Amino acid sequence: MKTIVVIGGGFAGVYAARALERKLRRRKDVEILLFCRENYTVFQPMLAEVISGTIGITDVVSPLRRMLHRTHVHVREVESIDIENKTISVAAGFRPHAHVIHYDHLVIAPGTVTDFRGLPGLPEHALPFKNLADALELRSRVIRALEEADVEGDDPELRRQLLTFVVAGGGFSGVEVVAELNDFVRHVAKLYRRIDPKEIRVVLVHAQERILPEMKAKLGAFAQRILRKRGVELMLGYRLQAATGESAVLAGPDGSVTVPTKTLVSTIPASPHPLIDSLTLSKTKNGRLAVDGTLRVSGHDNVWALGDCASVPTKDGSPCPPTAQHATRQAQLVADNIAATLAERPLREFDFKGLGKMGSLGRRNAVAEIFGISISGFLAWFLWRTIYLAKMPGWGRRIKVATSWTLDLFLEPELVELRLGGAGGAIHEHFEPGQTVFNEGELGDRVYILLAGRAEVVRRRSEGTDLVDQLLATLGPGECFGEMALLESAPRNATVRCLDAMTVLSIPKREFGLLAANVPGLRASFEQVTARRAGLLQ
Amino acid sequence: MKTIVVIGGGFAGVYAARALERKLRRRKDVEILLFCRENYTVFQPMLAEVISGTIGITDVVSPLRRMLHRTHVHVREVESIDIENKTISVAAGFRPHAHVIHYDHLVIAPGTVTDFRGLPGLPEHALPFKNLADALELRSRVIRALEEADVEGDDPELRRQLLTFVVAGGGFSGVEVVAELNDFVRHVAKLYRRIDPKEIRVVLVHAQERILPEMKAKLGAFAQRILRKRGVELMLGYRLQAATGESAVLAGPDGSVTVPTKTLVSTIPASPHPLIDSLTLSKTKNGRLAVDGTLRVSGHDNVWALGDCASVPTKDGSPCPPTAQHATRQAQLVADNIAATLAERPLREFDFKGLGKMGSLGRRNAVAEIFGISISGFLAWFLWRTIYLAKMPGWGRRIKVATSWTLDLFLEPELVELRLGGAGGAIHEHFEPGQTVFNEGELGDRVYILLAGRAEVVRRRSEGTDLVDQLLATLGPGECFGEMALLESAPRNATVRCLDAMTVLSIPKREFGLLAANVPGLRASFEQVTARRAGLLQ
Repeated sequence: MKTIVVIGGGFAGVYAARALERKLRRRKDVEILLFCRENYTVFQPMLAEVISGTIGITDVVSPLRRMLHRTHVHVREVESIDIENKTISVAAGFRPHAHVIHYDHLVIAPGTVTDFRGLPGLPEHALPFKNLADALELRSRVIRALEEADVEGDDPELRRQLLTFVVAGGGFSGVEVVAELNDFVRHVAKLYRRIDPKEIRVVLVHAQERILPEMKAKLGAFAQRILRKRGVELMLGYRLQAATGESAVLAGPDGSVTVPTKTLVSTIPASPHPLIDSLTLSKTKNGRLAVDGTLRVSGHDNVWALGDCASVPTKDGSPCPPTAQHATRQAQLVADNIAATLAERPLREFDFKGLGKMGSLGRRNAVAEIFGISISGFLAWFLWRTIYLAKMPGWGRRIKVATSWTLDLFLEPELVELRLGGAGGAIHEHFEPGQTVFNEGELGDRVYILLAGRAEVVRRRSEGTDLVDQLLATLGPGECFGEMALLESAPRNATVRCLDAMTVLSIPKREFGLLAANVPGLRASFEQVTARRAGLLQ
Repeated sequence: MKTIVVIGGGFAGVYAARALERKLRRRKDVEILLFCRENYTVFQPMLAEVISGTIGITDVVSPLRRMLHRTHVHVREVESIDIENKTISVAAGFRPHAHVIHYDHLVIAPGTVTDFRGLPGLPEHALPFKNLADALELRSRVIRALEEADVEGDDPELRRQLLTFVVAGGGFSGVEVVAELNDFVRHVAKLYRRIDPKEIRVVLVHAQERILPEMKAKLGAFAQRILRKRGVELMLGYRLQAATGESAVLAGPDGSVTVPTKTLVSTIPASPHPLIDSLTLSKTKNGRLAVDGTLRVSGHDNVWALGDCASVPTKDGSPCPPTAQHATRQAQLVADNIAATLAERPLREFDFKGLGKMGSLGRRNAVAEIFGISISGFLAWFLWRTIYLAKMPGWGRRIKVATSWTLDLFLEPELVELRLGGAGGAIHEHFEPGQTVFNEGELGDRVYILLAGRAEVVRRRSEGTDLVDQLLATLGPGECFGEMALLESAPRNATVRCLDAMTVLSIPKREFGLLAANVPGLRASFEQVTARRAGLLQ
């Protein structure tokens, strides 16, 4: 019995498994295993439509069990690959045992991940936009921001943060997200009686001089015109460099700019999956696996790679772009070549040029380049819908999406905030110099432990008729603050502000309460700190 | 300016606000405020359909902003009511400030909550079924269980837990949930190659001798017959009394029975909202607010209560049942009576008998009692769909649901597992005597602190040719265990089993790592414990 293991639940992995099923349907001595994180594959081109709810939340994804019939699907994360011993080890399920699985052929296609390393605050405060959970989270945050803005009538600073929506990255993904988000927010904001449409800012941040660099200049310019007309603010030549819970920090041509916002999406940058990092196979400069034209990883007869994590050479020498149309063709080729290897026949080389590119600009508008011809406006949008509908896997889903699109012509967009997610634990937070962590007199809702940076503790004192800030202490790494209000259920007795950019561990009240009450030594340790400070704060 | 505050986002609260809008549309001196937890109202009768995905996830709820046009909606939790000073205080949003709001008239309609107090393990391990998040969570758990069962081929005990689904409560809600769940699981299980349909158990637990006690005996018997025929196991005369992460403990006629399961739903018991508990208004024995026929809370001219949290007398003296048809009529009456009070006109009394009752039994089957006539089978199901469709708020939603139902006739059910929810924090867990917390040799994934009960720590030793369990220690409240594997990244070096029913605080690895690395004193305190035990465990 031969085992073919496919890693990855994106187009590359799933279509490879599907092509293998078809190609090897007569071989009873071969089993195909697919490992992936979710039990569905995301149809990326339509992911942005989840924001406005134009199509049903689950219609943008396809359950793997319906696409694959012979493959054994394992919804489990792969933790490591051992090329030497031809095994992979897989994360535990309900029972904490690791599973080790042997393979004869390995197909590596886990794709890329959003990589915020080196960008302070982004892992904590920026949303990626890659999978269904990201899209739903963004949607919920946008609705939450509108709900809060409608209530917080007398806090102009908070309203500005709530009503500004920032998307970083002007490639296809960033443009589609900003277009959908802008349409959605401006449309539904009318239902909020205390939100003035003029207060809403939707910003697209892009490092280059024009958006959609993958397309011809005139299509990029067209897209910019349409987005601007619909109210999107373009910040070209700016790069997202840091984020806090209240703002995005951008590096621009004239130094850095802070945009107040509570909703920040970053569609860049992507790095190959961490699983690839740990492999000692040959890679390109940007960390992708180097494969030859047959999709074999250099130096290994039974290891194949494809999709966004691989650098696949095309006939003219340049690497294949990371698009679905290339991934699905690579998937077919890898199946053909594995079948050929099993049958000891010669292998084929990858040869596909790409048919074109399309990007949606929201409401009945798009740009497209098909067989070299540029199309923009309504016709491009119509093509976009038609082509992607046809590309969706499964008839059931196509019918559902077509129906939703039809209903969307005369029904209003969805406005339900899905709040899921259980009790939150400790998280990291990032603060920029000058930013207030909390104010004297506020309710205590979390405890902070400073990991990097410095903070000042001040209290407002009346001096004659004036109110002045009195500096009580300066805090550095390793010190905690905010514990007093929680231990004593009292309002904050001082204001804490960031001096040098800080990373803190922030523990919510519920979590702190549970731990302080039960973990030996924890409460005592915080109480010591409080006692030491009590003198200071009198 | 007069302020009318409505508390509650269910049928009672939302329809009251709507009726007030209409009734007081000419009075510019009145403002209506509604406070609720979510920005939508759930259409309860169809909530069970979320499990199988027959209708779109968000189509079972209606956004409040579309139902209410003059009311100012605050999606905020009410924390307390001060009847004396005519104010309510509202939870903080992004800024940790409490808000205090004055009212002239107060309408209390927060409904009931699922109340697991006094039932060990239920708060942690049983799922309620009241709102959209509950329905989605159940759906995800069911799909997760199927995915895991498909992979865990060689662990019969775990498979039994994964493939058993238990619903407690044989009222309308429990019956609708078990019917949908059974249909869904049995239908989609065919797609899992390593699941034998015979392994699936769907159990309905009910304390009385027949289900649907609200209906005539013959309809209850019909429902039982249909459910049994479709594979639901009925455990009548059993009561859910405790739960662990691996089982439901039932008290039956012949003592207690343990049903292994990872999916336990409890649709009982419901108690009035905690907000009601804290009020010193007059209440009935079961904790509901006592109101007179005009829906006024006894002794207060400007405080009104309705819906499931209130005990509303009917003309014949018995209290109103907690159903939507009564809540919406009470909502209309409360609006009329508030308008009458403002205009100094006489009040009306509640007078409504109820039109009937209906319960869906899943796939094209239902039971109904309409104007005293009993109907069952396809006709009842057809009536169920028609009547509830007509009762849904908003034309848009009706069209969407009707379309989904039509597509569902020939498309396959949805199978996407939505995993949302961020990083989890510390949680409570419950263990029953004899249950294993973890086994020697497993990976360390959490640390435990014993809050109540006792555990034994044992290690397997070879004695000659036999393997025997050697008792290393007995643990009691306040002691922690499982820290060693995490501090040293080693497999569990002993097995821990429950002796007396235990409640533990269970801290996941990620959370423990974050805290141990950064909270002063925490790591040291755990290391001391480890050092003390090191001798024991050599």
